[in-house]
Amino acid sequence: MAAPKEFLDFVDTKADFFIQRLSDAVAIKSVSGDPQYRSKVIEMSHWIKDQFSAVGVETVHRDLGKQTVEGKELQLPPAVLGRLGNDPGKKTVLVYGHFDVQPANRSDGWDTEPFELTVKENGQLIGRGSSDDKGPVLGWLNILQYHHEQKKELPVNFRCCFEGMEESGSEGLDALVERESKPGGWFEGVDCVCISDNYWLNTRTPVITYGLRGLTYFKLIVEGPARDLHSGVFGRMVHEPMTDLIALMSKLVDVKGNILIPDVDNMVSIADDKERELYERLDYSIADVESAIGSSTTLSSDKVEVAMGRMRMPSLSLHGIEGAFYGTGAKTVIPAKVIGKFSIRLVPPQTPDNINPLVEKYINEEFAKLGSKNKCKLEFEHGGKPWVGDISHWNYEAAQRATRAVYGKEPDMTREGGSIPVTLTFAESLGVNVLLLPMGRGDDGAHSTNEKLDRSNFIEGTKLLGTYLYEIAAIAK
Amino acid sequence: MAAPKEFLDFVDTKADFFIQRLSDAVAIKSVSGDPQYRSKVIEMSHWIKDQFSAVGVETVHRDLGKQTVEGKELQLPPAVLGRLGNDPGKKTVLVYGHFDVQPANRSDGWDTEPFELTVKENGQLIGRGSSDDKGPVLGWLNILQYHHEQKKELPVNFRCCFEGMEESGSEGLDALVERESKPGGWFEGVDCVCISDNYWLNTRTPVITYGLRGLTYFKLIVEGPARDLHSGVFGRMVHEPMTDLIALMSKLVDVKGNILIPDVDNMVSIADDKERELYERLDYSIADVESAIGSSTTLSSDKVEVAMGRMRMPSLSLHGIEGAFYGTGAKTVIPAKVIGKFSIRLVPPQTPDNINPLVEKYINEEFAKLGSKNKCKLEFEHGGKPWVGDISHWNYEAAQRATRAVYGKEPDMTREGGSIPVTLTFAESLGVNVLLLPMGRGDDGAHSTNEKLDRSNFIEGTKLLGTYLYEIAAIAK
Repeated sequence: MAAPKEFLDFVDTKADFFIQRLSDAVAIKSVSGDPQYRSKVIEMSHWIKDQFSAVGVETVHRDLGKQTVEGKELQLPPAVLGRLGNDPGKKTVLVYGHFDVQPANRSDGWDTEPFELTVKENGQLIGRGSSDDKGPVLGWLNILQYHHEQKKELPVNFRCCFEGMEESGSEGLDALVERESKPGGWFEGVDCVCISDNYWLNTRTPVITYGLRGLTYFKLIVEGPARDLHSGVFGRMVHEPMTDLIALMSKLVDVKGNILIPDVDNMVSIADDKERELYERLDYSIADVESAIGSSTTLSSDKVEVAMGRMRMPSLSLHGIEGAFYGTGAKTVIPAKVIGKFSIRLVPPQTPDNINPLVEKYINEEFAKLGSKNKCKLEFEHGGKPWVGDISHWNYEAAQRATRAVYGKEPDMTREGGSIPVTLTFAESLGVNVLLLPMGRGDDGAHSTNEKLDRSNFIEGTKLLGTYLYEIAAIAK
Repeated sequence: MAAPKEFLDFVDTKADFFIQRLSDAVAIKSVSGDPQYRSKVIEMSHWIKDQFSAVGVETVHRDLGKQTVEGKELQLPPAVLGRLGNDPGKKTVLVYGHFDVQPANRSDGWDTEPFELTVKENGQLIGRGSSDDKGPVLGWLNILQYHHEQKKELPVNFRCCFEGMEESGSEGLDALVERESKPGGWFEGVDCVCISDNYWLNTRTPVITYGLRGLTYFKLIVEGPARDLHSGVFGRMVHEPMTDLIALMSKLVDVKGNILIPDVDNMVSIADDKERELYERLDYSIADVESAIGSSTTLSSDKVEVAMGRMRMPSLSLHGIEGAFYGTGAKTVIPAKVIGKFSIRLVPPQTPDNINPLVEKYINEEFAKLGSKNKCKLEFEHGGKPWVGDISHWNYEAAQRATRAVYGKEPDMTREGGSIPVTLTFAESLGVNVLLLPMGRGDDGAHSTNEKLDRSNFIEGTKLLGTYLYEIAAIAK
């Protein structure tokens, strides 16, 4: 292995200190989504800056401006940028993380105080932000601690970008990343990016993530009468907007998950044997999925099909209808204007730009076929492009080697079904290879009650991230 | 004409007195749906009893018991029963009406105080209950006023049943009607029923109504995962309940209003030329419908088809979905359990008893065809049978003759698309002919702001109801 034994031993020796520092971090209630805690997020950005400065990193705060929440202006927490090393003979690695957290109250169903890190006998470190994302951020700090205390040079040039608004839409970050990626910016010379802000598929096998789906979200509006009508008085006299909308929505996706809009599914290549093998190898079973969803309702009993459904295929979900009767009980209304909500998760080469026209054309054709006198309109709500990294790049090779070295097993190579928009921003602004190297397990409950990070994931995860830097130096020098 | 000229002249002469009395009735805020006005509804039941007693009718209060509203027991307003005459040589006519009203506040958008009858220069009598249903009830009182003051015998035996809970589900009335219809009951010997509690199709032509649709209301439940899922994480891995539900709902009714459940539409006879002619003759146009719905979205441009759609055909409306995303904005949820709400308006020979099994069979078959692993269940929510009266009966002949005599034109013979459940209760409990003979116009705004009754409808309507009684005596003696 490329990482020195002294580093690995140091991490084991310092474990309790690292956990105490994580406890200090968790104690700062840096909830970005609640204005009353904004000062705590800002306090947290100072704490992070001070901690990284203390281990020899040159750090700066970058002001991200203000946001308006419920009519009030709020200061955005500054991002923390850091750099250490500028050796032209070394690769320059940018790491990203966030120091804000989801809201949490004991009364939500937590077994312990969410902002007091509780160390359980089974090794779980329970507290808000332990896994998402203070633990991984502190993993990088732990690595730097060793090199600072032991006066060892890092094997790479280190850059970091930590933000305090990730749980609230990463406000201001895109512009910052674009700015700092330009010549003369903080990220000049970066060779690759590592993001540690997602999770293993399960509780057993480490993961390297090389893809995220994009999204395109639509509102499908059908309207007819000037006001809601009584079904007794007007039933079978008028074209009912709900009838038209339901007919259109039924033509978007079939029960097996196939997207019925022409050329959408077709746009995606069929997995060859080599790619299928990637999914076959995953330490992931139908039982894992059933346990996560709480029912036996997977689209297939073939684990490769199910995994590919999430990771390399687009999906279309019907979310609901605005304007129709949604309460309990019985109301005999003919709604006058109804808005169907649906979205498509995108995979390369799909983007909102090439998918939206197909959706619009299809909806217009299908509505014309209905022969209704109502009015129909499709509105694009929002979206984002998918991302897939090049797994043949040395960045991935380094992460794979590090995983084998630390965990003694082959990592699951995964693509996520959701989106982490900043990933694409880094990939596009910097034009370099990006990977996701998570620290936590699939059952950490990142946005849920009793969020935890296992002690072994924190400690071995620190070794993993450190070893990854050494492997980069070993491969790519 | 069968009605004596003295009666008709009396009504004209007494018009201002009648309007003053309607004003007194409107001033009592007998809102049955609001517990704070319950004492006013009871006050109104005393006022009605006293008024009918004063013109020689033997009246009684019938206690209907109590109801529970928001955990509190509330006394139901007593029904007022009346009788006058017991001549075996005369027909016995039962009239029904109600003395409670819908809620009304000036702030709802009324131009005048809703509980102060405002007489406008154009003849409109504006006030809550003027048309629904205090005006028609007082129409009967006006007729009795003449016979009492002029010491004339009524041409029929008169029975009346006035309730104070019609706007709140007619609580307690069904049981009362059934009880009083039995031998020895107040309604013993009744030969026909006349209900004046609906409206003309338009503002021009009087109406006699001989049918009402029934209803059967369903909840269609599809459930899969144990909790709502994120579409990024689980899209195209699981059977989505919304996809299944939308597929099923799309198979219930087509855009033209045809019900796709086998044997439902078929159960209804096709209108022959004679019946079509009834609809052809209606003073009712596509423009009338378009004006009522505020759009040009009728299912057909043929007025007969459109009128038959409401009056003699079943209709299926999709009301909405419980459990799905219904807000504004965009949420990327896969709802775990969704409940589609739909109902079918029924016409003879359809009843919930013969329709529900067809719906259930079809849903089960269609769901099986989908091949989904989710669970699907159909629940019957509530329903009621349709009603159609025999228009060849002398009761209808009398109402038609009376309309011709008073208005000088042929009445529109209509069936309503909605339900007035008490109609069926009278028809079934008494086993006699029932008809609906409305006083007000189609634009009276019964449940809306600025409810009105036109002075001419109140005065000519009084003559119509009186003449109807004389025509019965003339035809059926």
